[in-house]
Amino acid sequence: MQPVTATYEITAEDPAARALLVAVEQSHELPTELAPSNAVRDSLAHVRSVVERPGRPALVTVDYPADLAGGELSQLLVLLLGNVSLQDGVRLVDLDLPAALVAAMPGPRLGVAGVRALVGEPTRPLLATALKPVGATGGQLADLASAVAAGGLHVIKEDQGLANQPWAPFRERVPRVAEAVRRANPSSAYLPVVDGGPEQLRFARDSGAHGVVVLPGVAGFAALARAADLFEGGMVLAHPSFLGGFTASATHGIAPDVLFGTLLRLAGADATIFPSWGGRFSLTREQCLAIADAARRPLRGLPPILPAPGGGMSVARAPELLGAYGPDTIFLIGADLHRDGDPRRAAEHLVAATSRRG
Amino acid sequence: MQPVTATYEITAEDPAARALLVAVEQSHELPTELAPSNAVRDSLAHVRSVVERPGRPALVTVDYPADLAGGELSQLLVLLLGNVSLQDGVRLVDLDLPAALVAAMPGPRLGVAGVRALVGEPTRPLLATALKPVGATGGQLADLASAVAAGGLHVIKEDQGLANQPWAPFRERVPRVAEAVRRANPSSAYLPVVDGGPEQLRFARDSGAHGVVVLPGVAGFAALARAADLFEGGMVLAHPSFLGGFTASATHGIAPDVLFGTLLRLAGADATIFPSWGGRFSLTREQCLAIADAARRPLRGLPPILPAPGGGMSVARAPELLGAYGPDTIFLIGADLHRDGDPRRAAEHLVAATSRRG
Repeated sequence: MQPVTATYEITAEDPAARALLVAVEQSHELPTELAPSNAVRDSLAHVRSVVERPGRPALVTVDYPADLAGGELSQLLVLLLGNVSLQDGVRLVDLDLPAALVAAMPGPRLGVAGVRALVGEPTRPLLATALKPVGATGGQLADLASAVAAGGLHVIKEDQGLANQPWAPFRERVPRVAEAVRRANPSSAYLPVVDGGPEQLRFARDSGAHGVVVLPGVAGFAALARAADLFEGGMVLAHPSFLGGFTASATHGIAPDVLFGTLLRLAGADATIFPSWGGRFSLTREQCLAIADAARRPLRGLPPILPAPGGGMSVARAPELLGAYGPDTIFLIGADLHRDGDPRRAAEHLVAATSRRG
Repeated sequence: MQPVTATYEITAEDPAARALLVAVEQSHELPTELAPSNAVRDSLAHVRSVVERPGRPALVTVDYPADLAGGELSQLLVLLLGNVSLQDGVRLVDLDLPAALVAAMPGPRLGVAGVRALVGEPTRPLLATALKPVGATGGQLADLASAVAAGGLHVIKEDQGLANQPWAPFRERVPRVAEAVRRANPSSAYLPVVDGGPEQLRFARDSGAHGVVVLPGVAGFAALARAADLFEGGMVLAHPSFLGGFTASATHGIAPDVLFGTLLRLAGADATIFPSWGGRFSLTREQCLAIADAARRPLRGLPPILPAPGGGMSVARAPELLGAYGPDTIFLIGADLHRDGDPRRAAEHLVAATSRRG
């Protein structure tokens, strides 16, 4: 089988020596001379290339025998960056997987086509908001959901800060908001935030939600596929909360397109939220468009998924951002819908502004 | 109820302004003037103090109304650093939780006393190794386990790189190694690595293992408590693989003692592995001793847990490290037991070297 090929940016005085350490750390974690010969023959990783680049980190390619991943997402993550994540100077920036390994990954169930079918919107960009703030009552959140659904938004997700707090407990809130959305606009999808456990997933499904928001940084990467399993036909929207340790530095962690695009797509997200340029977070335009590309480009038969840029987007900038991201995108606009005190009208403005380009 | 108090190091031109942004981002994620007045009254976070320190990041304390955590570990993590993890310049370095919230967390089931009872060692430091490398057969791993158990090690854990690969598939390997350990030394505990799902947990329990190694960075923080639930009486050992994005930088993420000590203890680890100074990773002596302290110091009635320093430890340095860490520690020695080709004798040397101080 073709190997798992990982590309790292390595910041070190001697990148070739460091590359060898990475290859051993991420496969045997035992000096080669101490490993049994059958293990060295079958399962040792190999540094394929080291390209030094003046003024930039070296680009290093490591081939891992694909069997090291054991056909499992969790072990693939351990293989790509497990222990090395603890060290500065090594950043995962690309990966290439054999088709058989991709086929063994959970992957998206709905993808772009399934989400479009769910919300009855075949071609235009999908528009979304987050229900917030925490501290609002279930009734206030249901009223907000009703307003933006009536205003024409396709996806109404809950803010990652909503859980089971006393102001709007999960079991009271979810059926109430689901009912409000259904009455206001039968095409809108409502996605509550869940903790990733089976109880909340089943409750959300049985309450008339259309899918869920999952936080793989807290609930684990397997929580995305578990959500798809327990909530058949539901949309699985990945939220980047608590994953940022990987992306906030340029000298370690994981490139945002690999983490929010490729890895979450392999793990089973139908759409992937990330903080867009033009908002209050620090990803660049180039990084954001790379995430969108990783979400949608051909990947050994895996369905494309929807990039969902958010994090301080505005209605006024939606047409510009739409032009850059293209229509297979979920535009996630939060606070800006509240600015004039009439979220329904703001949602209608957003629909009108983005339809003109459709 | 007393608030959840988080202390951050903030690297920014205007730390007070940045602190306010953190408080809003981590609670309402909506500008205060746009939030309903009842939410602002009940659930908005407050910056308690900003201490600028010349040449160092500012130290900022934020009080969050404790109800924001909703009595749940997953939401507590979102609250402390969820979205802000995506931004450079903010590092979580301390937290103080009300007793009622700590009581609602999973917490360790065994802790120091339970693990000591499990391996029949009331006072001395506990000695451990990792079975590896991946690529070895189940028979080779069972032989290694047998040798180090006979040599007197208390805990024999699997390397995080072992999963369900073809060389030693999970269902073939785990009963075989469990049997080998039981025959060699009935006091030694064998902990296979699991993916965090219920199937592997139950299989490990039913195969005669004594607990499991869980990777919260991949399997999610809730996987620790799930392991304790499904494997009653089993030891839950947390491994830091894929968590390093949080600790590899000094200007964002989470201080290692908070992550590997406090948060994993709250989440249900009985012992917590981390890369010690003196090995091949980059934590300092001070950081490592702070992890050990966070694992064991009084925390509102939660049992203390065992710090498990590893990552390139040697038999020769064990007495020195023992002196620093103290006896309520699991010393994790991997490759160094293989150096002279006789892991059993190396284990016996380790037992002897550390007993002299006991």
